[in-house]
Amino acid sequence: MALIVQKFGGTSMGSIDRIKQVAGRVIKEKQNNNDVVVVVSAMNGETNRLLDLATKMGGKYDDIETDMIISSGEQVSSGLLSIALRNEGYDAVPLLGHQVKITTDESHGKARISAIDDHNIRTGLKSGKIVVIAGFQGIDSKGFITTLGRGGSDTTAVAVAAAIKADRCDIYTDVDGVYTADPQVVPDAGRLDVVYFDEMIEMSSLGAKVLQIRSVEFAMKYKVNLFVKSTFAEGPGTQIKFLGDEENMEELQVSSVAYDKTEAKISIRGIPDKPGIAAKIFSKISDANIVVDMIIQNISVHGLTDLTFTVSKKDLKNAIDITNGVAKELNAEEVISDDKIAKISVIGVGMRNHYGTASTMFSVLSKENINIMMISTSEIKISCIIDAKYAELATRILHEAFNLGKK
Amino acid sequence: MALIVQKFGGTSMGSIDRIKQVAGRVIKEKQNNNDVVVVVSAMNGETNRLLDLATKMGGKYDDIETDMIISSGEQVSSGLLSIALRNEGYDAVPLLGHQVKITTDESHGKARISAIDDHNIRTGLKSGKIVVIAGFQGIDSKGFITTLGRGGSDTTAVAVAAAIKADRCDIYTDVDGVYTADPQVVPDAGRLDVVYFDEMIEMSSLGAKVLQIRSVEFAMKYKVNLFVKSTFAEGPGTQIKFLGDEENMEELQVSSVAYDKTEAKISIRGIPDKPGIAAKIFSKISDANIVVDMIIQNISVHGLTDLTFTVSKKDLKNAIDITNGVAKELNAEEVISDDKIAKISVIGVGMRNHYGTASTMFSVLSKENINIMMISTSEIKISCIIDAKYAELATRILHEAFNLGKK
Repeated sequence: MALIVQKFGGTSMGSIDRIKQVAGRVIKEKQNNNDVVVVVSAMNGETNRLLDLATKMGGKYDDIETDMIISSGEQVSSGLLSIALRNEGYDAVPLLGHQVKITTDESHGKARISAIDDHNIRTGLKSGKIVVIAGFQGIDSKGFITTLGRGGSDTTAVAVAAAIKADRCDIYTDVDGVYTADPQVVPDAGRLDVVYFDEMIEMSSLGAKVLQIRSVEFAMKYKVNLFVKSTFAEGPGTQIKFLGDEENMEELQVSSVAYDKTEAKISIRGIPDKPGIAAKIFSKISDANIVVDMIIQNISVHGLTDLTFTVSKKDLKNAIDITNGVAKELNAEEVISDDKIAKISVIGVGMRNHYGTASTMFSVLSKENINIMMISTSEIKISCIIDAKYAELATRILHEAFNLGKK
Repeated sequence: MALIVQKFGGTSMGSIDRIKQVAGRVIKEKQNNNDVVVVVSAMNGETNRLLDLATKMGGKYDDIETDMIISSGEQVSSGLLSIALRNEGYDAVPLLGHQVKITTDESHGKARISAIDDHNIRTGLKSGKIVVIAGFQGIDSKGFITTLGRGGSDTTAVAVAAAIKADRCDIYTDVDGVYTADPQVVPDAGRLDVVYFDEMIEMSSLGAKVLQIRSVEFAMKYKVNLFVKSTFAEGPGTQIKFLGDEENMEELQVSSVAYDKTEAKISIRGIPDKPGIAAKIFSKISDANIVVDMIIQNISVHGLTDLTFTVSKKDLKNAIDITNGVAKELNAEEVISDDKIAKISVIGVGMRNHYGTASTMFSVLSKENINIMMISTSEIKISCIIDAKYAELATRILHEAFNLGKK
């Protein structure tokens, strides 16, 4: 007998019939004599509908009210799944964030979990019931509902698994695991049996939409035994695990290729190459709660330099306004921007033990005449900014060059 | 400076634009230097949509899960109204049932309020904010969300008004007060300046859909100063008040005419006229949670009698099944039913001081050849069951006979 947390996303919870299928998945674990805690997302499209209502009214994503409004989607789906389970003869206890209770900080719209009280979960399990928790939501110290940001139900699941010391946390989605690349783009992409935590964090931040990055960080910190599985198909899924000594690193180099078209780049040209300039620009951008991803600064010519950085497309207009303001102060030549870019990345813990990953990547791109605009590297990934129109092509040729196709 | 509770129903909260209109109404009271607590219903149609989801999944109206699901409608609208107020420069505190907190018993789907903690409401008001409470919902002693039944937001408003000792409780709706009859049926129907509590209770139970009957009982018990007003039109509305000594009863007789087509009647014929028979039938019906409204028993002929009673149409099938079972036991001749009936009622506290209301009613109906199938009377109302097809005609001719047209 094991203690298992299962999490089902919006597509899995997309309709009455799908929720019944989800109930089947839950019951199967219960029938294997396990204790089961389920975390659910809102029905597909519901969070967007609610957010749209709040936005149309003039609400902002970090309002107390917006959190109150959008958290209702998970409330509905936890109720519906509990009914579905009961209809099959399995008693369930539906619990909202404040009923669990899941305490967070007060950052509405992107709150961080500070504590999970396991009392009501354990009481439910002890009485033989399945506990069904509304994901994505918590409650702050003042008693207001908070939400954890997009994909926040993943974090709820992992945090609950950590709090109750679950034997396993299974994240159910509409794909049957983590892939070497987006199968829509690379037909030859294959499911990975294992992905290492470090890789998964890079993948999540580089455009692979499988898991919310914070959920992976949480799982890593609390050593949660994490799996990604399919709601609609049988299979072992992908295990997210720590790199052990037993792994043969010689065999690994790159494990996946990801691309991301959600960023745009801004260049500020002809600025004095003096200390403190970059700090000036980026502190103002950061004050506006805009996250900067990649930054490059050109070599100084005649005491003038160029600075280029990328931000999320949704922040582009705001970031340009701020940059224009700073450019004026600095007597910079001009500010230009480009939102038709893609970030293409190769990821793999094996890169630590291999030389030449970067040069292979650059030469493969160059063979297809794909110009590299910016480069960013870490120990286990290399990302290049390229023209958006080459994103899919670059993914395919890199996938092939690193031998990631199905064996 | 007064302390005012305002309640807005689903039609008033029906869209982003309407909620903005509602915000205008709220702000007007605030600008008059009043402290304002608002209670809101779900957006028009939302409770039905949510109930439909729960029902399709197999949920019942008294499930914990169904309450969790359907209470989310008010959660959304309290958030939306709070945003609308803030956009106009008025800070609001949105509060759900558990945040107020409103404690109820554990009768899911029709819970009764047992206590309201005024602390969070008063804290919000003291800081100069408008408090926006999600109606219709509370929380039971185990921490599960409960709902108060159809029209429950009226009860929330009145109970909150009682708990905080509000100077006034204004129920805003899409009509500008309580009418002498349904204006859709009687073009000449007029708004009543005053309706007495006793009358309002009869009206609510006799088909006038203005206020949930429990909210009126609550207001009566706690002496809440209650008004019905229109969200969309200016006007004094209708005051619901206690009958004082100053009232000139001589001028009053009947104050309104109501009809109700939601009932059906069942007759069980040829049953032995012995003590305990009626008890046998009605205890079984009551065990099935079916409410019986009117009952008549015919004079016994040769030791056999007939029993006729009315139930809500939604309970008809169930009630017929139960009655058939009892009929078999008793060797009754037959069970027949009729769902094409209407209950037509005249109501007025003045009936206490006037003779002849009943005879006027019967003769007016008889002049139009409308057959009376059943009669039920109280001190301040007379109800007759007639053929459904005459409901509107009967309403109009009684409205005229009792001189209720606009002065």
